[in-house]
Amino acid sequence: MIADRIRRPALLDRIVTPEQAAALIRDGMIIGMSGFTRAGDAKAVPIAMAARAKTDPFKITLITGASLGHDVDRMLTEAKVLARRMPFQADRTLRAAINRGEVMFIDQHLSETVEHLRSNQLGPIDYAIVEAAAITEDGGLVPSTSVGNSASFAVLAKKIIVEINLSQPAELEGLHDIYFPGRRPSRVPIPVVTCDSRVGFPYVPIDPDKIAAIVVTDEKDSASTIEPQDDDTGAIASHLIRFFEAEVEKGRLDLTLQPLQAGIGTIANSVLTGLADGPFHHLRMYSEVLQDSTFDLFDAGKLAFASGSSITLSSACAERVFSDFHKYKEHLVLRPQEISNHPEVIRRLGVIGINTALEVDIYGNVNSTHVNGTHMMNGIGGSGDFARNAYLSIFVTKSLAKDGKISSIVPMVPHVDHNEHDVDIIVTENGLADLRELAPRERAVEIIRNCSHPDFREALSGYFERACTRGGHTPHLLEEALSWHERVRTEGTMRLD
Amino acid sequence: MIADRIRRPALLDRIVTPEQAAALIRDGMIIGMSGFTRAGDAKAVPIAMAARAKTDPFKITLITGASLGHDVDRMLTEAKVLARRMPFQADRTLRAAINRGEVMFIDQHLSETVEHLRSNQLGPIDYAIVEAAAITEDGGLVPSTSVGNSASFAVLAKKIIVEINLSQPAELEGLHDIYFPGRRPSRVPIPVVTCDSRVGFPYVPIDPDKIAAIVVTDEKDSASTIEPQDDDTGAIASHLIRFFEAEVEKGRLDLTLQPLQAGIGTIANSVLTGLADGPFHHLRMYSEVLQDSTFDLFDAGKLAFASGSSITLSSACAERVFSDFHKYKEHLVLRPQEISNHPEVIRRLGVIGINTALEVDIYGNVNSTHVNGTHMMNGIGGSGDFARNAYLSIFVTKSLAKDGKISSIVPMVPHVDHNEHDVDIIVTENGLADLRELAPRERAVEIIRNCSHPDFREALSGYFERACTRGGHTPHLLEEALSWHERVRTEGTMRLD
Ligand SMILES: CC(C)(COP(=O)(O)OP(=O)(O)OC[C@H]1O[C@@H](n2cnc3c(N)ncnc32)[C@H](O)[C@@H]1OP(=O)(O)O)[C@@H](O)C(=O)NCCC(=O)NCCS
Ligand SMILES: CC(C)(COP(=O)(O)OP(=O)(O)OC[C@H]1O[C@@H](n2cnc3c(N)ncnc32)[C@H](O)[C@@H]1OP(=O)(O)O)[C@@H](O)C(=O)NCCC(=O)NCCS
Repeated sequence: MIADRIRRPALLDRIVTPEQAAALIRDGMIIGMSGFTRAGDAKAVPIAMAARAKTDPFKITLITGASLGHDVDRMLTEAKVLARRMPFQADRTLRAAINRGEVMFIDQHLSETVEHLRSNQLGPIDYAIVEAAAITEDGGLVPSTSVGNSASFAVLAKKIIVEINLSQPAELEGLHDIYFPGRRPSRVPIPVVTCDSRVGFPYVPIDPDKIAAIVVTDEKDSASTIEPQDDDTGAIASHLIRFFEAEVEKGRLDLTLQPLQAGIGTIANSVLTGLADGPFHHLRMYSEVLQDSTFDLFDAGKLAFASGSSITLSSACAERVFSDFHKYKEHLVLRPQEISNHPEVIRRLGVIGINTALEVDIYGNVNSTHVNGTHMMNGIGGSGDFARNAYLSIFVTKSLAKDGKISSIVPMVPHVDHNEHDVDIIVTENGLADLRELAPRERAVEIIRNCSHPDFREALSGYFERACTRGGHTPHLLEEALSWHERVRTEGTMRLD
Repeated sequence: MIADRIRRPALLDRIVTPEQAAALIRDGMIIGMSGFTRAGDAKAVPIAMAARAKTDPFKITLITGASLGHDVDRMLTEAKVLARRMPFQADRTLRAAINRGEVMFIDQHLSETVEHLRSNQLGPIDYAIVEAAAITEDGGLVPSTSVGNSASFAVLAKKIIVEINLSQPAELEGLHDIYFPGRRPSRVPIPVVTCDSRVGFPYVPIDPDKIAAIVVTDEKDSASTIEPQDDDTGAIASHLIRFFEAEVEKGRLDLTLQPLQAGIGTIANSVLTGLADGPFHHLRMYSEVLQDSTFDLFDAGKLAFASGSSITLSSACAERVFSDFHKYKEHLVLRPQEISNHPEVIRRLGVIGINTALEVDIYGNVNSTHVNGTHMMNGIGGSGDFARNAYLSIFVTKSLAKDGKISSIVPMVPHVDHNEHDVDIIVTENGLADLRELAPRERAVEIIRNCSHPDFREALSGYFERACTRGGHTPHLLEEALSWHERVRTEGTMRLD
């Protein structure tokens, strides 16, 4: 059994307990840990680290692919292990510590972290702690449900701790395509030219001598936390379907569209599922996280291929997919997040990027990260990698938040993650604004009319008209621009009544 | 003489006057015109268009590479010919019309415009009006001092008007490398792998039947408007030299650094010239506009090769360079701006991008375009193409503007062109802030201490400290964040005394 999963016999005697592995981590270390949107995260060693820190305090810099499952970020935060954390997180407890200024959070484009490591602007990594489905005869690591940054962590780290997870299906082997761009300035083109290009190894090639410890685990990935489709997300999906149909009619797209990317979260997932109701076929995805919607589209016979960096599913969907994995496997590939999110490949393929905004301003600038301009929600994630280089950059959001107290269309966003240059289309349940080749004053008219909630529309138009009397390419009333958010801070609502 | 410049005899009888060519342009047309930062612009036909419009009014959408010389944007604005203008400009009269909302200006990443054309999201172009140094036997167009978007305009336009400029040196032939990325989704990698890669044609291959008219001109490019180095830009350059030296000491760079890009304007030009005083050698440039500084570095024996999309020089420098052009030619290449600015190539080569900010906030967000948050200066140009994908993204600015009334370091920028994710290093005459792998609260300390002017330092620290008491990953006092700019609007100064 274990010999199938650790196929290099010499490594068998490196098996230790999670506690023994955790004891290797010392104060001040930089740790690279697997895990991308809850999938394929290290599950035992980080929890043992949190336990140890209660009696033996230490602090680390923790770098991952993206967010983790199993409350690892919560436990490490409560145990005060995290001095620095990058490049993404989605944990309530860690978020609060970040917002108190206790954990230094470096919110980064997901494609960039390993560039910084490779060029020694960050690091070196002391330990990579990575989950694997298996170790090959040569000592290669077979990732599990995510690749994320794990491949580069393992290659660049001084030492590696491997968690072999027996609950991850052995059939995952062969799913991954591990490719590393060379060091600069002598790097060559990344040879990915279609969603299904395979250009690397099916495992992470490492020097097996670097494996300091192996821990055997048997716990499933945490289930995704997305909510089912509702009226609003259904409406967003149908606006998008109508838009794509119109693009097809204009001869700009055909019914296979362009490779699709869909961001994390409930809204993007619902919108993607909604595409099953359109006339499209042979769709392809070149995305980051593959959520339930990917498999809904496969099952609806709409999707030909999906490339991602992780698979993060609800329990029901995971059951369905992994009990019949051979059916999906030949239509799937998981890549390092540097490649799934690489500007070069996204631009080359002409990806249609669909990401979720917290809020959007009347000129089309997007805030994806900072609640009320100051408090971190999750992080920019891959949204910037996609939005900047996409064939079409689409942002979706509900027009209201917090029981209608907050308008997601505002005069000025108090934090900009994606500026007007990178935002082509905005969709809310009310409608769609096509901003391509429009000047800011024209954008404002479209966004207010098509996207804003009727309760706030008049106030937005009033702001815009008064701002225009002051002139400027992008008119604003600086003394009033952030007053809607200031009202949320002091009164908990943007409403005046 | 003219037969050397128009080497396809059948085309000789398409020579017309500028007025005859201008008469081809009709109301509502989309026109693609050559010209990139004053270099290689069409010089006769647009002026004839402006003259014609005085008696025969018409409006067009004008797309160029970047800014134009010869007051063309001013004349077309005064003649009310411009309905829409993209993707960049730098003219005082046009800027005022944009800010009055009279001309719809679409401010775009310079690498993106032709992607939109190629995918029919913009266009089609009715006429391309392009300057050429020559037309080859096959009807190919040899560009002059810029390529910009002209190659794609000529290939994608329904018809072409060519201005053959006899004042442009015949030796320009062979300088250009014209490569077009394929249509998506079947595009292959762009084969540029070093600054001096040559991957295309030395001319723009077109169907000569599309040439509707040829106009012969004899006027030089407008000289660049940059100012000489001063104490502040000298100080910025020496901070940067010290920083690069430290990176070399840490083993992250060697003395050839990485390929350099320097943005438009006086400050970036002076900083680049300043690098001649450092210990660096065999430098390479992968940039957009090649300004005087490029040739200063060549003459100082520091520069091995420069790739750009245009050459824009002061009169004295142009005299020096073009009287001895063979000396430089083999170390130079001019590419379409889509390639000089392509995310794929910038990321692959690991370019060090040096661009100029109007202002920067305490968290490292950059405003490059909107004076006081509302009024367009020039446009984002290529700064986003470089900053997002650079190995190191550096922004330079003087710490004060407008005779010291304005601090270029502010609590919050009222317009964001480059957010914290894309800004690694900020330099003013006061010092350098290295923001890599820092959280926002850490960034603020570095920027305020190292970059801000002493006159405003205390006010910035006070703002930051008070904001921190409210919490948040990126602390702000929303009711005060834009008050510095509001004071400029109402009182013309950020100073309280
Ligand atoms: C923006 C983002 C938070 C939306 O997530 P979602 O699950 O689709 O959307 P929801 O509407 O459920 O919003 C999530 C939370 O934000 C809150 N929110 C939404 N809009 C808000 C606004 N304008 N102001 C304040 N809070 C807002 C919601 O109330 C909800 O809060 P809760 O968790 O306390 O209930 C999420 O997509 C994200 O983190 N994006 C950034 C990273 C990214 O885009 N990655 C894409 C590539 S993977
Ligand atoms: C930002 C930019 C305008 C600076 O230009 P520059 O010539 O190097 O710098 P200067 O200090 O001379 O500033 C130019 C003008 O901006 C004004 N300015 C500078 N900082 C300012 C501030 N914080 N607030 C208001 N005005 C400011 C100056 O006073 C000057 O005004 P003037 O022309 O009326 O005298 C210019 O670099 C630009 O347009 N950048 C955006 C495009 C870009 O980066 N392209 C790079 C790839 S090509």
